[in-house]
Amino acid sequence: MVDLPATPLLDAASTPDDLRKLKPEQLGQLAEELRAEMISAVGTTGGHLGSGLGVVELTVALHYVFDTPRDVLIWDVGHQAYPHKILTGRRDRIRTLRQGGGLSGFTKRSESEYDPFGAAHSSTSISAALGFAVANKLADRPGKAIAVIGDGAMSAGMAYEAMNNAEAAGNRLIVILNDNDMSIAPPVGGLSAYLARIVSSREFLGLRDLAKRLARRLPRPLHSAARKTDEFARGLAMGGTLFEELGFYYVGPIDGHDIARLVPVLENVRDAAEGPILVHVVTKKGKGYGPAEAAADKYHGVQKFDVVTGAQDKAPPGPPSYTAVFANALLAEAARDPTICAITAAMPSGTGLDKFQEKFPERFFDVGIAEQHAVTFAAGLAAQGYRPFAAIYSTFLQRAYDQVVHDVAIQNLPVRFAIDRAGLVGADGATHAGSFDVTYLATLPNMVVMAAADEAELVHMVHTMAVHDAGPIACRYPRGNGTGVAMPTTPEALEIGKGRIVREGKTVAILSLGTRLEESLKAADRLEARGLSTSVVDLRFAKPLDEALIRRMLTGHEVAVTIEEGAIGGLGAHVLTLASDEGLIDAGLKLRTMRLPDVFQDQDKPDLQYAEAGLDADHIVATVLKALRYNSDGVVEGARAS
Amino acid sequence: MVDLPATPLLDAASTPDDLRKLKPEQLGQLAEELRAEMISAVGTTGGHLGSGLGVVELTVALHYVFDTPRDVLIWDVGHQAYPHKILTGRRDRIRTLRQGGGLSGFTKRSESEYDPFGAAHSSTSISAALGFAVANKLADRPGKAIAVIGDGAMSAGMAYEAMNNAEAAGNRLIVILNDNDMSIAPPVGGLSAYLARIVSSREFLGLRDLAKRLARRLPRPLHSAARKTDEFARGLAMGGTLFEELGFYYVGPIDGHDIARLVPVLENVRDAAEGPILVHVVTKKGKGYGPAEAAADKYHGVQKFDVVTGAQDKAPPGPPSYTAVFANALLAEAARDPTICAITAAMPSGTGLDKFQEKFPERFFDVGIAEQHAVTFAAGLAAQGYRPFAAIYSTFLQRAYDQVVHDVAIQNLPVRFAIDRAGLVGADGATHAGSFDVTYLATLPNMVVMAAADEAELVHMVHTMAVHDAGPIACRYPRGNGTGVAMPTTPEALEIGKGRIVREGKTVAILSLGTRLEESLKAADRLEARGLSTSVVDLRFAKPLDEALIRRMLTGHEVAVTIEEGAIGGLGAHVLTLASDEGLIDAGLKLRTMRLPDVFQDQDKPDLQYAEAGLDADHIVATVLKALRYNSDGVVEGARAS
Repeated sequence: MVDLPATPLLDAASTPDDLRKLKPEQLGQLAEELRAEMISAVGTTGGHLGSGLGVVELTVALHYVFDTPRDVLIWDVGHQAYPHKILTGRRDRIRTLRQGGGLSGFTKRSESEYDPFGAAHSSTSISAALGFAVANKLADRPGKAIAVIGDGAMSAGMAYEAMNNAEAAGNRLIVILNDNDMSIAPPVGGLSAYLARIVSSREFLGLRDLAKRLARRLPRPLHSAARKTDEFARGLAMGGTLFEELGFYYVGPIDGHDIARLVPVLENVRDAAEGPILVHVVTKKGKGYGPAEAAADKYHGVQKFDVVTGAQDKAPPGPPSYTAVFANALLAEAARDPTICAITAAMPSGTGLDKFQEKFPERFFDVGIAEQHAVTFAAGLAAQGYRPFAAIYSTFLQRAYDQVVHDVAIQNLPVRFAIDRAGLVGADGATHAGSFDVTYLATLPNMVVMAAADEAELVHMVHTMAVHDAGPIACRYPRGNGTGVAMPTTPEALEIGKGRIVREGKTVAILSLGTRLEESLKAADRLEARGLSTSVVDLRFAKPLDEALIRRMLTGHEVAVTIEEGAIGGLGAHVLTLASDEGLIDAGLKLRTMRLPDVFQDQDKPDLQYAEAGLDADHIVATVLKALRYNSDGVVEGARAS
Repeated sequence: MVDLPATPLLDAASTPDDLRKLKPEQLGQLAEELRAEMISAVGTTGGHLGSGLGVVELTVALHYVFDTPRDVLIWDVGHQAYPHKILTGRRDRIRTLRQGGGLSGFTKRSESEYDPFGAAHSSTSISAALGFAVANKLADRPGKAIAVIGDGAMSAGMAYEAMNNAEAAGNRLIVILNDNDMSIAPPVGGLSAYLARIVSSREFLGLRDLAKRLARRLPRPLHSAARKTDEFARGLAMGGTLFEELGFYYVGPIDGHDIARLVPVLENVRDAAEGPILVHVVTKKGKGYGPAEAAADKYHGVQKFDVVTGAQDKAPPGPPSYTAVFANALLAEAARDPTICAITAAMPSGTGLDKFQEKFPERFFDVGIAEQHAVTFAAGLAAQGYRPFAAIYSTFLQRAYDQVVHDVAIQNLPVRFAIDRAGLVGADGATHAGSFDVTYLATLPNMVVMAAADEAELVHMVHTMAVHDAGPIACRYPRGNGTGVAMPTTPEALEIGKGRIVREGKTVAILSLGTRLEESLKAADRLEARGLSTSVVDLRFAKPLDEALIRRMLTGHEVAVTIEEGAIGGLGAHVLTLASDEGLIDAGLKLRTMRLPDVFQDQDKPDLQYAEAGLDADHIVATVLKALRYNSDGVVEGARAS
């Protein structure tokens, strides 16, 4: 057991109602106890550390000032909400964070009434808060909606769309811009430079200035030069005209770690007659924990670590991660081909492209949290003869779906999609699972959709994408480490739409897409042990299908099973459709599709998630036996069924 | 034949190269000729009128000043590009606009080298132009990229994401903000109010001011109060600090119909050493054609019309449109239930919600072109106990896919999706087809997905959505008019996941989803005429499937066919998956799935598009006969095949 920190005030403040009984001068100590508790907890569980540490004082101040949960507090992304969880009745479970059956690493409606709106993807909070605020306005109910959003998340178009609509909420909407100048990677773009100019151009506001500013809520006649002048006078002192032009009343910047200043400012904001209001709070990611402050990016998401030294548990040595394999393979392609570009949406390290950035900075583009722009920007590069790789996690590519359809697929432009975190993702849970990409991509004309079965395959697929100029092409690969296969010395260009037979048998055919190949081979061993000769195919392509190979497998075996790390509508559906189109099912065909179940699965270890999903060797064997009408003793059930 | 306008200059300027040989003082007349030609052409074909009329002078000036197609000119949305098409070698085909086999109503790469990037959805142009500009920068090639984007399109997050990244392009990127204060509907939101303040706060810039401004391209040290003051001084004169904060050099506002002023300004912009530059041009939608100027919204998209009187051809009298039926049904629900809200993304008229807006203004929300925000805002309303209907065309809902997944489906929030323009859409072509929604929605856990078979069904489905509080629910319905069925006096709440048998037979089962029901019934008649007793089922639900009914249909007939107005991965795939999961295919099952083909179909009359897609009665009959191995003479082919 680790030593738990002494936390007398925190022990007394187990809910926000208790917290609000404290005296203002006790809040600083409470914050310190909360910080110690959080460091201790994340040391045990791993998880997002820096973001939570940065908002400890803000979390205390918000719950102190606002009447949560009647006032709704919506944390953007939600990975900074560990202190919030500790303060809202979940302290007893905080050391189960991100574990199977434990607390989510994000906010989650089913977990607590203090989580009015779950999150995990960024930049949703203002839209959601606006929904709550407008609902309260319609119902003539009290209740503010407070969105806390980071500066990185502000680069997403969705946040801008929401700000552009915020005026409808009046003073029921409060946006806290948590400016820590560091989302996961250093921020990029015009907005970020703008925020930096505001913060660097002046000292934090004194209490008196703030009080004066908030008291002086002038009527705001439109089209008035007087107002513009006044606004500028305020802007010069405060910055923030960009937000004011969009309809916000801007307050800031404020030191987000100075709780004695935060509380009265938030009280004024709470009681303001006009709105919406944006409060610009400046915080330091990792605040109060030396190792995390010193290297904010490394402590964004952490393994378990030693609280005293900050040393993170190393993953056991083993095969390289798919991310690293992709990154190295792309580097090799880029060294060979000067037209190759790499694009990330605020994930240089998560996608492995930080290496690309070092080596080929002029061909590397981090567009911020802006997947829509990333994809269409890539389409523009492709239209002008470059070979762009858009490296976007499966779950985040959802945010650019229309751009994939409209700008890439319809125009048949050769944008390369490197889709990391495909399939189940472990501790990040349902919101980050890459379950739908095969379905939503393979339904599109012109798309080529691949999935890597192992890290050697991924190397070939990166090369295949690099040389495929005929149209869009995607390759999906999972979170985690490869299987340890020998790596190719020279990458091969795979033939588009051709799978490979990994093992040839006679009775059972397993058609695998992606990294379930390993379980498929295990299943084949077990089936062979029962006397069932088994073929295993790595289809490689969900689109176009290897029709000849599939036809041969379906008709040449007694039973065939497809398996994929994705939801319904993907590989299995395409294989069934082919079998139906060609009339292969007319005369009887034992074909089963194994896929993710029709539920959003909670976080757990990936192996356990896949077992829960029914996508491991055991389930493959059971599916085959059931289709063959063998019972578990290997006895044919024959005519009993159907 | 209509009388064609006399166009001597336009006759001489059939390409931009020819145009650039004209003298500046001839451009005004050229613009007038171009306007007359465009009015005449659209009078013949119907199409988008007002937008093109608004940019006649701008189109002439851009091609005159820039070296198209070496400089790439990207029209956002592209529906304003008819004058551009006339000037870029497509005049001889301009009277085929939006017709089958004719010119697209939008820009299209395959049509012309002057269309470097196709469009039809809004707000993509800056991202794409940035791709071209950066590619030119990387290759050290000359060539500017010019994006022309409307003020309405600027409300989309995607445009903001692109602006936030624009600085990377330097002076190779030029954005023309075409501010006509009217996208399809009156603009909404903070940005629009901001633009109105700029324009109303001052006169258009004089030439001398503009020249001075452009000459004075100061270095822009960051973090300098001096710069800020200077910027404000410029801002006060010019407006535009919002764009400048995001990294643009702002020029404007300029009268977009004053060609003598536009040309020198654009020349200065073209030759600027610094950038990116945003030019704020003010235009009038419908400019120069009285009837269109007087009612800009009515002339956004028009039927064929009489050029002299402006009278549009009326659609022949007939059943109401699905849009109108939806709108009326929702009004009735809203009258009954005060928690019902309606949300549109800049399409109050297109979705029929303009009526809702009149009747229940406080529960109506036009969020601008901001589908992402629309969906998550709806989720917030739903979380707070309201019953929001998000009415978004199928093709535009793609832009909110992540929000549907992450904010609605994962949280199982009862957001109602009213999905208009599902299936093929006629003259708008591939970019507007609603082909993928069943696939991308039905793969999501928690979603309920319905499709209306006729307008009476739609009324029931609107009611079903209104009372369904268990989670998200979607109903898709097509563009165009209903079938003329009797309308229900009282809407019914349909049982979730239950289809209906429309006609009962013995040999053939047709399982229809959506408005192919009419063709299915026609096909059934023809099959009966051949002695093939035919059942027809309206499945109503793509998710959850009516498993019992489907099982009965599949096993109780010799052949079964599914038909849907959507691409692979949708209804047919789900029915096949069910048949496979349950082992119904093991003993032989003649089941075929009819769906949209794996191509992006060009514009044509909807009936012809569906015939081309193979989704009409003829093709149903042929599919059934082929599955039964009847040849066209009704003779069983028997063992010959397979």
